[in-house]
Amino acid sequence: MKIFAYGIREDEKTSLENWEQANPNVEVGYTDKTLTPETADLANGASGVVTLQTTPYDRESLEKLNNLGIKNISIRNVGYDNFDFNDLKDFDMKLSNVPVYSPNAIAEHAVLMVGRLLRRIPEVDKKFDNGDFTWAPTIGKEYREQTVGVIGTGHIGRVAIQMLQGFGAKVIAYDVYHNDSIEKQGLYVDTLDELYAQSDVITLHVPLTSDNAYMIDDNAIAKMKDGVYLINCARGELISNDALIRGLDSGKIAGAGLDVLDHENNVFGKNWGSIEKLPDPIIKNIAERENVILTPHNAFYTETAVRNMIEVSFDSNKDLIEGKIPDTLVFSKK
Amino acid sequence: MKIFAYGIREDEKTSLENWEQANPNVEVGYTDKTLTPETADLANGASGVVTLQTTPYDRESLEKLNNLGIKNISIRNVGYDNFDFNDLKDFDMKLSNVPVYSPNAIAEHAVLMVGRLLRRIPEVDKKFDNGDFTWAPTIGKEYREQTVGVIGTGHIGRVAIQMLQGFGAKVIAYDVYHNDSIEKQGLYVDTLDELYAQSDVITLHVPLTSDNAYMIDDNAIAKMKDGVYLINCARGELISNDALIRGLDSGKIAGAGLDVLDHENNVFGKNWGSIEKLPDPIIKNIAERENVILTPHNAFYTETAVRNMIEVSFDSNKDLIEGKIPDTLVFSKK
Ligand SMILES: NC(=O)c1ccc[n+]([C@@H]2O[C@H](COP(=O)([O-])OP(=O)(O)OC[C@H]3O[C@@H](n4cnc5c(N)ncnc54)[C@H](O)[C@@H]3O)[C@@H](O)[C@H]2O)c1
Ligand SMILES: NC(=O)c1ccc[n+]([C@@H]2O[C@H](COP(=O)([O-])OP(=O)(O)OC[C@H]3O[C@@H](n4cnc5c(N)ncnc54)[C@H](O)[C@@H]3O)[C@@H](O)[C@H]2O)c1
Repeated sequence: MKIFAYGIREDEKTSLENWEQANPNVEVGYTDKTLTPETADLANGASGVVTLQTTPYDRESLEKLNNLGIKNISIRNVGYDNFDFNDLKDFDMKLSNVPVYSPNAIAEHAVLMVGRLLRRIPEVDKKFDNGDFTWAPTIGKEYREQTVGVIGTGHIGRVAIQMLQGFGAKVIAYDVYHNDSIEKQGLYVDTLDELYAQSDVITLHVPLTSDNAYMIDDNAIAKMKDGVYLINCARGELISNDALIRGLDSGKIAGAGLDVLDHENNVFGKNWGSIEKLPDPIIKNIAERENVILTPHNAFYTETAVRNMIEVSFDSNKDLIEGKIPDTLVFSKK
Repeated sequence: MKIFAYGIREDEKTSLENWEQANPNVEVGYTDKTLTPETADLANGASGVVTLQTTPYDRESLEKLNNLGIKNISIRNVGYDNFDFNDLKDFDMKLSNVPVYSPNAIAEHAVLMVGRLLRRIPEVDKKFDNGDFTWAPTIGKEYREQTVGVIGTGHIGRVAIQMLQGFGAKVIAYDVYHNDSIEKQGLYVDTLDELYAQSDVITLHVPLTSDNAYMIDDNAIAKMKDGVYLINCARGELISNDALIRGLDSGKIAGAGLDVLDHENNVFGKNWGSIEKLPDPIIKNIAERENVILTPHNAFYTETAVRNMIEVSFDSNKDLIEGKIPDTLVFSKK
């Protein structure tokens, strides 16, 4: 049995080699290139493909895999909206994903952003770089004095709640579905408006759906406390960049921690040489602010997450090849 | 009744005014200057003095206060080693301190340092400043994969443990006295050597005593795991700067978070214009490293801590003036 993997990064190789050693009956081939009509033939001889990319999986590439007899595709991430399921149906392909690789990675990134904003660490860091070893005026606020509103109490939101409670913060939560343990703790408020009205810090942990795009707009921000801190490690399109800028300009929003950003693909994933050279003026405006911490969608990027992405995707692909149905199946014709 | 306060900073004024309003029968005077023979007369008419400074309280200043009939001194911080108790005895003065103002402030500073080192935030920040929005190679480690050794399970250490457990870290602890709740959780190891051998991260929360100065020396570091992270938000003299530098040079120590530093008074509290200009070559060597986070003894510096320092010191001073004995008394002749 052979599995061929696309888009393998340097930091994935140790986990990949470990998986190979643990599965001596599987031959593993790989490339650092993504799956395109030009690279599809590299998978020749394999029974399954493991892949990861943010660009669309075009029909031509899938057709080439189909011509090689490859019917099993396993992505190493969660989101499969870059597949057209009609293509998978036409070629009778099965698709699996990695639904959860490390909620902790994203939750701790979000919770660290909260602390870095509250303790004014970007300003303290800048003072340090300038050789200024005085305290004032960069006095901090403590987590335990904050009411933190967590929107979305799924895998990530729940772990974030534990971390925030460890710091002694008061947590309130909102979700369209109520989780038992969060319900038992009495953390849910009934409406987003209540959460906006009570929270000193708001952190987003919901998926992007048809009805919550730009949920954080001028209207929502107006309902928040003056001096609110906003954290988004979920999806960029949940926040309107223009409304965010207006909120930061007016001081309504005291600071923001953003791992995702509307139109992030305009800037993320590349080295621009300086913030000055960012090609998107709105993102540049956000990036240049001292009370904004911007990270390039790397909240997930831990050794644990990468190991899980490799292990679960390869395990799933092996299952598919052996005719088993893994928990991680997201598409199958039958 | 009048209380006069020395060394009042801008960020203390709101809390000071709030205390005044809550105590309309007390007149409050203050200066931003510290207590010296030149400024002692400013307290004329007061029955007590509230003060905060790191330099010695000299006999002449105390004598001048005594001549004004002032017998009650309340410091706004913990440490009173800059008083000579013989002076206090000679002038029959009472002294109170603020033994605990915010364990959370220091604990969260330490725990944030852990996360910032594990997630390689100094490097990620530098990439950001250079317009580099790629992930690799700055992959992070998660708290929950770490064994964190907490040395000292007093007020601060215990709060730090809760925060680390919120992140899912495995905590082990060492203290000469065992705290009940930490004991019940089974966190204590019997010796420092065991803690050194097992910990991926070590954080210090012990006072400086005659027998633990430079406890972290070459010998101790040799007993630690390769790639250990060291956090010191306690006292600078607990770690040998030379041993630290050797450990960082060899890679034995993967990173350090330091809010205190041996000989910190050579550099802390001043604006040097740049790191380049730091007058202490050893501290400069430490400060210039990308895997070191250095902060100028500001772990305590939160709005909550400052409020508590003002409230507890003024409450204590009022008690002393009224002939009551506050919990915070540290010296009295009888
Ligand atoms: N920054 C990153 O690197 C990164 C990595 C992985 C996931 N994410 C984002 O984090 C999000 C949450 O991930 P998860 O693993 O916790 O997902 P999950 O499915 O476990 O939880 C999502 C929760 O959101 C709730 N929800 C859905 N729509 C909602 C709405 N309109 N209003 C309120 N609640 C709603 C669901 O009921 C569920 O409880 C993902 O959808 C993804 O967008 C980001
Ligand atoms: N960075 C800052 O701004 C800042 C502010 C306040 C305090 N501190 C430091 O933090 C330290 C801890 O503060 P705290 O409020 O938790 O004090 P604490 O007195 O509540 O706790 C100290 C603990 O250390 C233990 N201990 C004493 N000597 C020890 C030794 N040799 N080995 C092991 N354990 C020992 C004690 O038994 C006690 O449990 C202080 O002593 C001070 O040095 C730093």
